[in-house]
Amino acid sequence: MQRKSMDDLGRISADEIQDTAKNPFIIILDDVRSMHNVGSTFRTGDAFAVEAIYLCGYTPTPPHRDIHKTALGATETVKWAHFNTTVEAIKAAKANGYQVLAVEQAHGSVWLQELQLDNKKTALVFGNEVSGVCDEALEIVDGCIEIPQWGAKHSLNISVSVGVVLWELIRKIPTK
Amino acid sequence: MQRKSMDDLGRISADEIQDTAKNPFIIILDDVRSMHNVGSTFRTGDAFAVEAIYLCGYTPTPPHRDIHKTALGATETVKWAHFNTTVEAIKAAKANGYQVLAVEQAHGSVWLQELQLDNKKTALVFGNEVSGVCDEALEIVDGCIEIPQWGAKHSLNISVSVGVVLWELIRKIPTK
Repeated sequence: MQRKSMDDLGRISADEIQDTAKNPFIIILDDVRSMHNVGSTFRTGDAFAVEAIYLCGYTPTPPHRDIHKTALGATETVKWAHFNTTVEAIKAAKANGYQVLAVEQAHGSVWLQELQLDNKKTALVFGNEVSGVCDEALEIVDGCIEIPQWGAKHSLNISVSVGVVLWELIRKIPTK
Repeated sequence: MQRKSMDDLGRISADEIQDTAKNPFIIILDDVRSMHNVGSTFRTGDAFAVEAIYLCGYTPTPPHRDIHKTALGATETVKWAHFNTTVEAIKAAKANGYQVLAVEQAHGSVWLQELQLDNKKTALVFGNEVSGVCDEALEIVDGCIEIPQWGAKHSLNISVSVGVVLWELIRKIPTK
C-alpha cells in the first residue's frame, strides 16, 4: 500500500486550528510528574481536537524542552491552563458545564466501553503516575471510568490511558 | 468515590499469567527507536493480554534499564521475539495464521472505527517514529489501518497509537 503525502493528509496550520471546531472534551492532569506524559497528552489532545488541557499542581507546564520533545509543537495548538489544585480545575470545568469523570480503578467505576456520554461535555481527570487521582478530586467528580485490563500489572502508562479513553469518547460522538 | 485496593484488582502474578488466555493479537514494532515506546508497548501488551510482541530491526530489546523504566516488569509477562527485518516478522505472523495490518496513513487504509475483524487473529505493524512503516512491509501487509485525527500534527505518539488501536480491536472481540 502507498503512504499518503503531506498534501493528502490535509494538515491544517497552527493558526487555522484556533478556529476549527473542537470536540467537547477537557483533559485534567492531576499532579502528573513526567514531561513525557505531558508532552504526549498535548500531542493526543491536538490529534483528537480537545477543547483544552488543564495542568494541575506540580504537573509541568510549557514551554519546556522536555515537553516539546514529545509534544512536537502541539503546545501551540491546544489551549491549556494551569491550576494550583485539581479541585479548582474540576470546579472550573463544572462551572463551564462539563461533567467530570476520573479515570481511576474505583468502586462503582464504569467500564470504559459501557460509558454513556448522553451528549454531555466531559472533562477527564488523570492522576499521578504512582498514586493515581487524589482523594480530594475523587470526592467531587461525577463518576469514575475504568479501563478493563487483563494483565499482571493493572496499570497503563498515563499517556496511553489518555489516548485510549479519548478515542472511546470520540467514538461515542454521534457524528463521528 | 473510593479507589480499589490491590486485592480488589485481583492482580495475577507473572508466573500465573503465562497460563492465562491471551487476546489473538501480535504487535510488530518496525525499527522503533525509543526505549520509552518499547517499554510502554510492553506495558500496554500486558494490560490488554496480547499474544506476543515482535521487535524488528534496530528496535531495542529487553533487558535494558530504559525499557524497564516504562515497562515496569511487563517484559517478563509478555512473550516477545526479535527479527532482523520487519518483513521476516510479518511472514512469521502470517505463517501462524495471522492477518497483518499496518497502522499507517496510506491510500486505501481503513478507518480504525470501521475495521471489521471477522474473528481473525491480527498482527499490527507500527513503524519508526519519523519514517513510519517501511515500504517493504507495506508491500506485503494485508491492509492498513488509519486512526482518524483532527489536529494540526497528524501524528500520535507510537505508544499511544498502540494503546488506541489495541483497545479498538479488543472492543471488537465478541465476548468483551
